[in-house]
Amino acid sequence: MKTVVVRNIARADAGIVKRLGALGASTVHEAYGRFGLMKPYMRPVWAGAEAAGTAVTVLAQPGDNWMIHVAVEQCKPGDMLVVGCTTDNTDGMFGDLLATSLKARGVVGLVIDAGCRDVKSLKEMGFPVWSKAISAKGTVKATLGAVNVPVVCAGINVRPGDAIVADDDGVVVVSKKYAAEVATKGEKRQADEEGKRQQLASGVLGLDMYKMREPLAKAGLVYVDEPEND
Amino acid sequence: MKTVVVRNIARADAGIVKRLGALGASTVHEAYGRFGLMKPYMRPVWAGAEAAGTAVTVLAQPGDNWMIHVAVEQCKPGDMLVVGCTTDNTDGMFGDLLATSLKARGVVGLVIDAGCRDVKSLKEMGFPVWSKAISAKGTVKATLGAVNVPVVCAGINVRPGDAIVADDDGVVVVSKKYAAEVATKGEKRQADEEGKRQQLASGVLGLDMYKMREPLAKAGLVYVDEPEND
Amino acid sequence: MKTVVVRNIARADAGIVKRLGALGASTVHEAYGRFGLMKPYMRPVWAGAEAAGTAVTVLAQPGDNWMIHVAVEQCKPGDMLVVGCTTDNTDGMFGDLLATSLKARGVVGLVIDAGCRDVKSLKEMGFPVWSKAISAKGTVKATLGAVNVPVVCAGINVRPGDAIVADDDGVVVVSKKYAAEVATKGEKRQADEEGKRQQLASGVLGLDMYKMREPLAKAGLVYVDEPEND
Amino acid sequence: MKTVVVRNIARADAGIVKRLGALGASTVHEAYGRFGLMKPYMRPVWAGAEAAGTAVTVLAQPGDNWMIHVAVEQCKPGDMLVVGCTTDNTDGMFGDLLATSLKARGVVGLVIDAGCRDVKSLKEMGFPVWSKAISAKGTVKATLGAVNVPVVCAGINVRPGDAIVADDDGVVVVSKKYAAEVATKGEKRQADEEGKRQQLASGVLGLDMYKMREPLAKAGLVYVDEPEND
Amino acid sequence: MKTVVVRNIARADAGIVKRLGALGASTVHEAYGRFGLMKPYMRPVWAGAEAAGTAVTVLAQPGDNWMIHVAVEQCKPGDMLVVGCTTDNTDGMFGDLLATSLKARGVVGLVIDAGCRDVKSLKEMGFPVWSKAISAKGTVKATLGAVNVPVVCAGINVRPGDAIVADDDGVVVVSKKYAAEVATKGEKRQADEEGKRQQLASGVLGLDMYKMREPLAKAGLVYVDEPEND
Amino acid sequence: MKTVVVRNIARADAGIVKRLGALGASTVHEAYGRFGLMKPYMRPVWAGAEAAGTAVTVLAQPGDNWMIHVAVEQCKPGDMLVVGCTTDNTDGMFGDLLATSLKARGVVGLVIDAGCRDVKSLKEMGFPVWSKAISAKGTVKATLGAVNVPVVCAGINVRPGDAIVADDDGVVVVSKKYAAEVATKGEKRQADEEGKRQQLASGVLGLDMYKMREPLAKAGLVYVDEPEND
Repeated sequence: MKTVVVRNIARADAGIVKRLGALGASTVHEAYGRFGLMKPYMRPVWAGAEAAGTAVTVLAQPGDNWMIHVAVEQCKPGDMLVVGCTTDNTDGMFGDLLATSLKARGVVGLVIDAGCRDVKSLKEMGFPVWSKAISAKGTVKATLGAVNVPVVCAGINVRPGDAIVADDDGVVVVSKKYAAEVATKGEKRQADEEGKRQQLASGVLGLDMYKMREPLAKAGLVYVDEPEND
Repeated sequence: MKTVVVRNIARADAGIVKRLGALGASTVHEAYGRFGLMKPYMRPVWAGAEAAGTAVTVLAQPGDNWMIHVAVEQCKPGDMLVVGCTTDNTDGMFGDLLATSLKARGVVGLVIDAGCRDVKSLKEMGFPVWSKAISAKGTVKATLGAVNVPVVCAGINVRPGDAIVADDDGVVVVSKKYAAEVATKGEKRQADEEGKRQQLASGVLGLDMYKMREPLAKAGLVYVDEPEND
Repeated sequence: MKTVVVRNIARADAGIVKRLGALGASTVHEAYGRFGLMKPYMRPVWAGAEAAGTAVTVLAQPGDNWMIHVAVEQCKPGDMLVVGCTTDNTDGMFGDLLATSLKARGVVGLVIDAGCRDVKSLKEMGFPVWSKAISAKGTVKATLGAVNVPVVCAGINVRPGDAIVADDDGVVVVSKKYAAEVATKGEKRQADEEGKRQQLASGVLGLDMYKMREPLAKAGLVYVDEPEND
Repeated sequence: MKTVVVRNIARADAGIVKRLGALGASTVHEAYGRFGLMKPYMRPVWAGAEAAGTAVTVLAQPGDNWMIHVAVEQCKPGDMLVVGCTTDNTDGMFGDLLATSLKARGVVGLVIDAGCRDVKSLKEMGFPVWSKAISAKGTVKATLGAVNVPVVCAGINVRPGDAIVADDDGVVVVSKKYAAEVATKGEKRQADEEGKRQQLASGVLGLDMYKMREPLAKAGLVYVDEPEND
Repeated sequence: MKTVVVRNIARADAGIVKRLGALGASTVHEAYGRFGLMKPYMRPVWAGAEAAGTAVTVLAQPGDNWMIHVAVEQCKPGDMLVVGCTTDNTDGMFGDLLATSLKARGVVGLVIDAGCRDVKSLKEMGFPVWSKAISAKGTVKATLGAVNVPVVCAGINVRPGDAIVADDDGVVVVSKKYAAEVATKGEKRQADEEGKRQQLASGVLGLDMYKMREPLAKAGLVYVDEPEND
Repeated sequence: MKTVVVRNIARADAGIVKRLGALGASTVHEAYGRFGLMKPYMRPVWAGAEAAGTAVTVLAQPGDNWMIHVAVEQCKPGDMLVVGCTTDNTDGMFGDLLATSLKARGVVGLVIDAGCRDVKSLKEMGFPVWSKAISAKGTVKATLGAVNVPVVCAGINVRPGDAIVADDDGVVVVSKKYAAEVATKGEKRQADEEGKRQQLASGVLGLDMYKMREPLAKAGLVYVDEPEND
């Protein structure tokens, strides 16, 4: 039912995506009401990778990267490819040849709920990838999936055109509908954090700064001077 | 029963903790009779991290970092915060703001049986963290836990004031009662190893250096010149 | 039945092993018909490690590294030690003393379906290790296993003398019988890839370069311009 | 952004859901083009459980079952409760008191991407539950989530009102939009299978019945009479 | 440091343990302030098993059941054997011969953070076991551990003589110090639940019975009649 | 290189396989020197299943059961099908139609390092299956693997014709070369165990029956009457 390629998708605004990328995954996730974060097994294949883009989505079969080849054609500059899989799989569906092709089209990164290979080359190319595994395992091109349909990737439902923000803290997906609002909230949050950081660095306690003492007491927290003899 | 904060705890001696830190996790673990090692899923969030300190312990609820905020106030210079969780959880309970606050109090590192975020900033700050996961997932401040009670962290029961030694090989916990004895044994072991290293480097076999040939023969080890044709 | 040490094993040709090493794990795995790859949980303990050698195999008991000491004596320059375990285990069976000994004998690396420790020293020594875990957990020397019998390591049956190629993408095992053929196929594949890379970099689509459009259409792929309203 | 309860949802037709339930999870999954199957870690908490219903969805926080209490009120006879969680969690969010309440409202079962407890009572009540874990771990009621918004549960995006079919083979989710079509296809498939079963039972080979010999030969399959001497 | 057998241990009172057993794991865990529950991977090896007893503790090495043999002698009628392991291990450390021996001494069950075998016989004998795995893997008797020292088992620190309650919902450990208090609280809780069950069965909503509507509104919960068009 | 079907394989003797089956997996594994046991994640899909047969082996691709269809033709009465996979996969590669076909050929069971479905029907048919997962996930028939080549299944290298013994304790593989010897040793072991069982049931301690007291003392075991005050 879903073996289809959707050609024209609406994308989150490039300027907003850039602002989200500047905030980073943790701040965006908080600003989005603590939604949108992929499971933490999604890790960058090389340290220090950072990217933000608009999602072109792929639904792939296990051990089969045919649909990634199909998806390349649907990509535009500023996109990120997001690959979900119909079943758990760690095969190396993506490597440096596909990265070369994506880079030629202006794609800024890949998020794949499966494996990735050619890690050394990807790092040299500076092409960022977040994946579930690193694996040399080769794949076939035999069975159809879909491109630009909603796909679940690492626990999050990703729709074509959604904003993706990925860095060392993980991968966050923001619905294009809320991207502007989240960017604004995130920038406010970031500004607020700077002041807090300075207070904490000067020795002010979070207990006081966040006014937690009263709610803690209400919740029943007790301080004792000696450990119970257990 | 355990929703309590214990204020005055006895700590392992700072000088001994320093000696343990100089030995490193593997040597301390051996000198401690092969006890005290946390499960190997505990990994430094940035490569090369090393720390040794005295434990201030936290028992946290899943997805809730309230008690970490409470624990900061109980920390002294030379402490390490050790966070256990009432149930398996990978949420990002700790980030750069809490690290700023701990650093301001002289805390030398964090060990958390859950997730950590703001990895890039933590590395820039040089604040070492060992965790089960890296995750941007934000947490609430809603439910009490405890501070400075014994907590199980990654398979080890940690008591307030215990010595913690953590590096690239893992995290070891030494009861304050045995810290001095372990330090002494570890230093002896380290000295012995240097001689062994030189012998092995010169081509002497461990089989001979450790006198294993006789016990191996007694245990029934057989040498054959041809593989069996199986 | 297998508590035996086999002394004289046939090894894959050193020149061929060198050629395989130059190709890297991903290319060798493809050239071998997509066989021989260990499970992706096998990771280098320090980034950037690369090695290729001939297998000396060890079957070890959980928490017991006695047979690794036995195996050292059977190693020759150009060998890699490959350690399987009779049951899942993550203990640190291997550290810098054993590495010193292996290095003295010209061994080029270690692959172990268990844990490894002394990661910092191993990196400083430049001794490459691929393992399932990093763990300071010490081991005993109490129970026999075997050396130079076929062992399953991370899902692959390894025979003594097989060629091992390991890098950032994983660990591949090639039967000595097929090593020459795989090297030749791999070199051809590598040469072909260079041309493909240039085409893709210039913007040619894989869909066209690999002539996928016709088989995709035959398989029933449909392009639509608008997402279905689901 | 999603802390909301949606009161009026469209549900898949009860008659169609009944037909889907009669087909079972495996047949429905095939008829749906092999889509819609939750990850296989979702298992019935008591053997032999079978259910089919319309989804009332819950997004819960880890260790917090507040929103399940909220969701009960939104349930109608024939519904199944489907609970996703903002992060991986195995706590026992559901037990026999909630089951009693759901049963009183005509709810036919529960699917929860977390833990369940009171297994013995649930079996005695005949209330079917599919969960990720069985755990006595109690939960708090402290943080909002949502009811009747789309939630990802065990890898599948579930929308309120979708048809759920669950049995010993797993849990399948069918969009209400396609439920009728899938039921019809599934019934045809089931009818076809009966004939196949009889042929296979009589000794006809699948190779012949499915006419696989020619495509296998085309794909390059070779038959040999002796194993290669490897 | 811990290779010791402690002969005389204080045990929780037998009458109180019996009362705890009558309450079951979930109720005891709640009455204990939601503490003391082992990780949910601990499962009964045969369905329907239930037991409550006083802990005799064992610290075992991976793949080595020597200390279980040592522990048998320390057991008295009404005890349960609780086995922790110095490292993760699933080997079949326990089978029907050991069960025969324990049964002869009046031991009421076993909790082991490792593997168990002879499942069929154990069921026929009616000897209840909770374990991490079922595995035929045989073990050696080569390395010392300890008996009747505190051991961490499946995430919980168990002290000799603690009360253990185990059933289909998991395994709970109650410090002997708190056993009486927990039994009393649990019985009160159980009595309260009966009334709640009847209300819920009659159609009263938990929202009303637990008076949740006001705190939910305060927390910001919003009801809408139509799903947002996302 | 391995995309081949081997037609004529030597099989372990049927009479010996029957004797092994009568011993059960745990005893056979011990008699085989504690070798040959698959990883403990291999579990019967319905409780109480027991089988012993000669291996017909299959190497399958992830999500693709084509080669199982090919393998059926190679099976004879008394065989068990053993399916390995080129990569980790839990898809439901096997169901009741294939079981019907295998049963018609006299095959006594299936061991598959992947998923299985139609669990209810398989139980009704009395066809025993050991698998890594239960999953309704359907598979394709697109890519070649091999039949009757050595395959690694759940950590064990299985050769065509090997004896397979499977029950509630797991799955053991015995090389056809050693099958007779293992059967004889296992029968002796079983006879010995009966006497031990009676002694243990009468209250004799294993410490005395196995004469462990002296080696324990030599290893340094210490008995104390009071716990250390830690």
